[in-house]
Amino acid sequence: MTKTDDFPWPAPGTPLADVLTPMPVIDEVRLANNIARAQEYVTAQGKAFRPHIKTHKIPAIAHQQLASGAVGINCQKVTEAEVFADAGCDDILITYNLLGSARLARLQKLNLRVNKLRVVADSAVTVAGLSDAFADASKPLAVLVECDTGAGRCGVQTPDDAVELAQAINAAKGLRFDGLMTYPPVSGAATVEDFFRKTMARLADLGIDCPVRSNGGSPDLFASGKVPSATEHRAGTYVYNDRSMVRAGECGADDIAMHVLATVVSRPTPTRAVLDAGSKALTSDLLGFSDHGEIVELPGARITSLSEEHAVVDLTDCAGPLPEVGTRVRVIPNHTCVVSNLFDRMVFHKNGVVTRVETVAARGTVW
Amino acid sequence: MTKTDDFPWPAPGTPLADVLTPMPVIDEVRLANNIARAQEYVTAQGKAFRPHIKTHKIPAIAHQQLASGAVGINCQKVTEAEVFADAGCDDILITYNLLGSARLARLQKLNLRVNKLRVVADSAVTVAGLSDAFADASKPLAVLVECDTGAGRCGVQTPDDAVELAQAINAAKGLRFDGLMTYPPVSGAATVEDFFRKTMARLADLGIDCPVRSNGGSPDLFASGKVPSATEHRAGTYVYNDRSMVRAGECGADDIAMHVLATVVSRPTPTRAVLDAGSKALTSDLLGFSDHGEIVELPGARITSLSEEHAVVDLTDCAGPLPEVGTRVRVIPNHTCVVSNLFDRMVFHKNGVVTRVETVAARGTVW
Repeated sequence: MTKTDDFPWPAPGTPLADVLTPMPVIDEVRLANNIARAQEYVTAQGKAFRPHIKTHKIPAIAHQQLASGAVGINCQKVTEAEVFADAGCDDILITYNLLGSARLARLQKLNLRVNKLRVVADSAVTVAGLSDAFADASKPLAVLVECDTGAGRCGVQTPDDAVELAQAINAAKGLRFDGLMTYPPVSGAATVEDFFRKTMARLADLGIDCPVRSNGGSPDLFASGKVPSATEHRAGTYVYNDRSMVRAGECGADDIAMHVLATVVSRPTPTRAVLDAGSKALTSDLLGFSDHGEIVELPGARITSLSEEHAVVDLTDCAGPLPEVGTRVRVIPNHTCVVSNLFDRMVFHKNGVVTRVETVAARGTVW
Repeated sequence: MTKTDDFPWPAPGTPLADVLTPMPVIDEVRLANNIARAQEYVTAQGKAFRPHIKTHKIPAIAHQQLASGAVGINCQKVTEAEVFADAGCDDILITYNLLGSARLARLQKLNLRVNKLRVVADSAVTVAGLSDAFADASKPLAVLVECDTGAGRCGVQTPDDAVELAQAINAAKGLRFDGLMTYPPVSGAATVEDFFRKTMARLADLGIDCPVRSNGGSPDLFASGKVPSATEHRAGTYVYNDRSMVRAGECGADDIAMHVLATVVSRPTPTRAVLDAGSKALTSDLLGFSDHGEIVELPGARITSLSEEHAVVDLTDCAGPLPEVGTRVRVIPNHTCVVSNLFDRMVFHKNGVVTRVETVAARGTVW
C-alpha cells in the first residue's frame, strides 16, 4: 500500500553510519536490559507484569516481553489488539471504553480467538453497549471497572461508583466483572491503594469476586510495590525509555534504547544548525521540556523549534566541536511512544551494527 | 504490510455518522473551493502556483490542484516525490538540502523520469554532494539557492552569499543554477522582495540567468502579490485549512475542510469529557494555542490535555448542551499537516455523505 517496501532498508550487518536519516534506531542490548529489569522488579513484588505495546507496536518485542515473564499485554484499540492476536498473544487487556456497534462486533470476534481478553468500562453507557454486543455471545466478555485515582482522565470517581458499576456489569447479559483498573498520576501509589482497598472491601461485603486489580504507568513502575492490593502492573515507555524517563529518575542515560538518527542539513549561521528530524520524526510532545529532545553528540545545544521536516538547533551553549553540514547525530526524544507511531519500520542494532528491521505492525490501527 | 486493508473503511454513500472514530474527514466542497480560491488569487498576481503536498500526501488531490492550474508540486523528500512521480506529476520542486550518496542515487534516477525536477541548496557541502552524484548524469540537475529571509531555518544569509553559491552551482559538473527559493516568516513580503531583488541584480551583472524565484507559505498566500519579483508561490496548509489559519485571518470557519471525527468515551465528572482523539490523532502541535483544537459542537469547551489516545475536555465554559458518552463531535485541529501524517487513509465526504476513501500514499516516506 505504501512505498516503503521499495526503500533501502539496511540489511543485518550494515553499520548505523549507512542508515538513511531520519530514523529511530533501537539498541538491542538496552532493550533486552530494560525488559529484564522491569520484569524482575515487578515479579519480585509478587505481581504480574503486563507491558503496554503502545510504545513499540511490534509483535516481536511483545514476544520478548512475554518470554521474559510478562503475563500478557496491554492495548488501547481493538484493531491494535487484533495485530497482536494474529501474532499469537493470548492474554490481552484493552484499557479503553469501547463504543459503537461496528467496533464491538469486531471485539466479539476477537474475544473468541484470544484466551483471556479483558476491556474496561467507566460508565453505564459503555456497559450497556458491551452488553448489547455480547448478549448472545458464546463466551462472555471480562470487564474491569476503570477508576480515576487522580490522573483526571477517564474512570469512576469513587469506590461507591466502582461498586455500582461492578454490579451493573455482573447484571448485564454477556459480561463478567473481573476487577479494577487505574492509570494513576505520578507518585499516586497511596491514592491507588486507598481506592482499590475500599472498593475491594465493599465488593467483598457484597460477595462479588474482584480477582484483577491492574495498576499502571512507567513513571511508577519501580514503585509498583507500593500498591500491595494491585495484582498486576502495566507499563509501556520503560521498554525504550526517553528523555522524560531520565528526568524522572526512572532510568539512566545508559538505559535509553531509542535514538532518532538525524543529519545536520544546514549550518546557516555560526550558532545555528538544522537537522533533518522535524515534528514528523520527533513529534511536538514537550512533556514539560522547553526544547525538543537532546542531541547526544552536541552537549549544551538546544533544539529550539521544530517544523515538519526540520529541527532548528541553537549552538550558542554547545560545549563540543560544532557540527558540519553532513554530520550525523543521535537525538533522544522527549517522548518515545509517539515517535514509534510515525514510522512504518524501525531499525535495530547491536553496538552500532544493524541486527534487524521490524515493521511497526500496529501503527495505523486507529480503531 | 499493515492491517488497514482489513478495516471497515466506509463505502461511498455511507453517512459520516457511521464512520468509526477517530478519523480525519475532508469536506469535498470546501477542498475544491480552497483549491480554486488560492489558484485564482495567485494566477491573478501573474505568478505560478506550486502546492506543497506535505499537507495531504495524496496524489488524487495533487491532480485536483494541477487541474485547477497549478504549475507543479512541492515536496520535502525524495521518496515522497517518487510517490507523486509514480502518479504522473512531472514538475516537482524538492525544497530540501539533500545529502548522502544513497539518497542522491535515488534522486538521480528520479531526475530522469520527471520532466522538471528541482532541488535547493544552501551550502557548498550540499552542492558538492549533488555534483558528485550528478557529475556523470545524462541530464543535469536544476538547483535553486535557498535564502533565509528571516524565518531563521535554512538558507544563505545574504544576497552576496546567494550569488556565490549560484556561481558554485554553475561551476559544478552535472548541476545548473535555476534561481532562488525562500520560506519566509509571516508577513515577510518586504524582506523577501528586497533579498530577491538585490540577488537578481548582482546575478544580472554577472550575466547569470535566474529564471525561478520561488516564495512560499500558506500564511502569506493571499499576500503573495506583495513580492513582485517572485515568479511562483508555494503553499500547503491552505488546501485543508486549520485553526491556525482561521486565527491568522487567512480563511473563515467555512473554509475548514478537515475535521477530526471523535467520540465522547467518558464523562467522569460534570465538567469533564474525554474524547477518543489523542496525540496520536491530533498531534501535540500547539502553534501558539494553549489548547489542542476546537470542538465544533461544544463552543466554549477546551481540550486541556492530550494523552496518546485520549483528549481531556474541560466543559466548565461550554455554552451548549453537555455531551453524553457516545456523542460524536468534530474537532478542528490546530495544525492540519501533521494530522495527515498519522493516518494511512482518510475519508472524504460531501454534505456528510462519504464520497471516497483515499490512501495517504506518501505517508511514511521518511527519506
